[in-house]
Amino acid sequence: MSIIVLGTVALDTVKTPFGERKHMLGGSAVHFSMSARLFSKVNLVAIIGEDFPPRHIDFLHKKGVILTSLIKEKGKTFKWEGEYKGDLNAALTLNTELGVLSAFSPRVSREQRKIKYVFLANVDPDIQMDLLKLMHSPRVIGLDSMNYWINHKPKPLLRLLKKVDIYVANDQEARALSQENNLIKAAKKLRSFGPEMVLIKKGEHGVLFYCDKFIFSLPAYPTDKVIDPTGAGDTFAGGFMGYLARAKKINEKNIKNALAYGTVAASFNIEDFGLNRTSKLTLNELQTRLLKFKKSVIF
Amino acid sequence: MSIIVLGTVALDTVKTPFGERKHMLGGSAVHFSMSARLFSKVNLVAIIGEDFPPRHIDFLHKKGVILTSLIKEKGKTFKWEGEYKGDLNAALTLNTELGVLSAFSPRVSREQRKIKYVFLANVDPDIQMDLLKLMHSPRVIGLDSMNYWINHKPKPLLRLLKKVDIYVANDQEARALSQENNLIKAAKKLRSFGPEMVLIKKGEHGVLFYCDKFIFSLPAYPTDKVIDPTGAGDTFAGGFMGYLARAKKINEKNIKNALAYGTVAASFNIEDFGLNRTSKLTLNELQTRLLKFKKSVIF
Repeated sequence: MSIIVLGTVALDTVKTPFGERKHMLGGSAVHFSMSARLFSKVNLVAIIGEDFPPRHIDFLHKKGVILTSLIKEKGKTFKWEGEYKGDLNAALTLNTELGVLSAFSPRVSREQRKIKYVFLANVDPDIQMDLLKLMHSPRVIGLDSMNYWINHKPKPLLRLLKKVDIYVANDQEARALSQENNLIKAAKKLRSFGPEMVLIKKGEHGVLFYCDKFIFSLPAYPTDKVIDPTGAGDTFAGGFMGYLARAKKINEKNIKNALAYGTVAASFNIEDFGLNRTSKLTLNELQTRLLKFKKSVIF
Repeated sequence: MSIIVLGTVALDTVKTPFGERKHMLGGSAVHFSMSARLFSKVNLVAIIGEDFPPRHIDFLHKKGVILTSLIKEKGKTFKWEGEYKGDLNAALTLNTELGVLSAFSPRVSREQRKIKYVFLANVDPDIQMDLLKLMHSPRVIGLDSMNYWINHKPKPLLRLLKKVDIYVANDQEARALSQENNLIKAAKKLRSFGPEMVLIKKGEHGVLFYCDKFIFSLPAYPTDKVIDPTGAGDTFAGGFMGYLARAKKINEKNIKNALAYGTVAASFNIEDFGLNRTSKLTLNELQTRLLKFKKSVIF
């Protein structure tokens, strides 16, 4: 099954206690693609500027990502600069340059409109809605967002929530949007806003999944190798959606496995800067670590 | 198998968003006993003052807790007063009155010295060492402590760590004592201080277990019924040690099950003030919830 993912393609500058990297390829749609590609054909919908290095295009192409709807426009590529201090869970945003992103209007081919699995990775909710309107009859729509949009565009975000099947949020975002401290209460409230499935990412503490039929909870993969957590949430979502698209049937067993694959994919992402680790990741490595993970949580 | 637990017997005054309760029976050794009693005979070693209500003695006796070594001295019973605000994970200590606890020197009967399972619940590390010296040849020694002792008596605490098999700490304490942010790194460092097994409690995020042979990680039991988390960590430790003492063999399977039982026991503790819920808890209820918990974490 194919997936279409809308989101950002960025040039990231990241500083962690382990070093600094400048203008690495990053962005929500790119991190998502790195894990989703292991399961499904990934169609990327995003915008870049004239300064975008051609080698990154080559790289994405070689990774099998379909770039038909990666638009290049006059102006600068979206740039993000962040720093992680002692506690590698929280990024401090030092600078954001929207560049071409500020006038992004997604376009997709006629063929791509028929894709059944849609993921709206973090980007302005109005742009997310624009893409959704272009799609013919998607079967599963996933949505990610961030605190900035919860605070600045709550109405468009709530309109979107009515239209999606899966809402992916981190714990802080889930609490902010639901106005509930307890994460189960938060998940229930978010469920009442529309999406049948609510998935709360808790960073080093794992993930909580909520739907009317069952609740599922996984710790993170236990690791002390944390170099750069940027994109871990998107890598998680890519593994999760990728697995679901490949499995086709949305049932309890497949959802649980998808959550475990997403968790393990994210554990590779954090082991090195940017895409260094996930770009080399194979399905085989993912499966091997999944078995190790299983042993560390099953009693 | 019998367990001997040293710790506090307290009169707790607790305020949460759900109400306030004054001078409830509490303390580390009492909360520990409420879950451990479901698996093993529990011998309590603690001190109370002249103001201790006789009905609490009756209550503990009726719950099957052996009170031979519960000493009554002239003076006031240890009192703790705390408040939980929006985020029910963190208690704000409003007041502590040590009372008789400040001159506590544990005494145990000749018979009790032979008990093989020893748990040193939170109390001054010098008192914990005093009890340990009285014991003949314990098979498994567990130790809990708190930030106060890490900051004020690090040397006696580190001496103790050399002598125990299991160190139980919450994430904040583990980070403080190990000087490591990443919890796996923290667990490894704590392991190097002596204890073969390190168990890090993460409140609503579950628990992380570390030993040289394996790492194990469980989320908390997913619940939105959180009334009063006081004593959840001790209830967890009681379920864990109780199960191990009953299982007798300390192997991977039993350790994992013990962690799951401890997790589920703690989930009952937080559902009501003080001992209201755990005092009524049966092994049957614990097992029923364990099966539900299993379904919510196994993929």
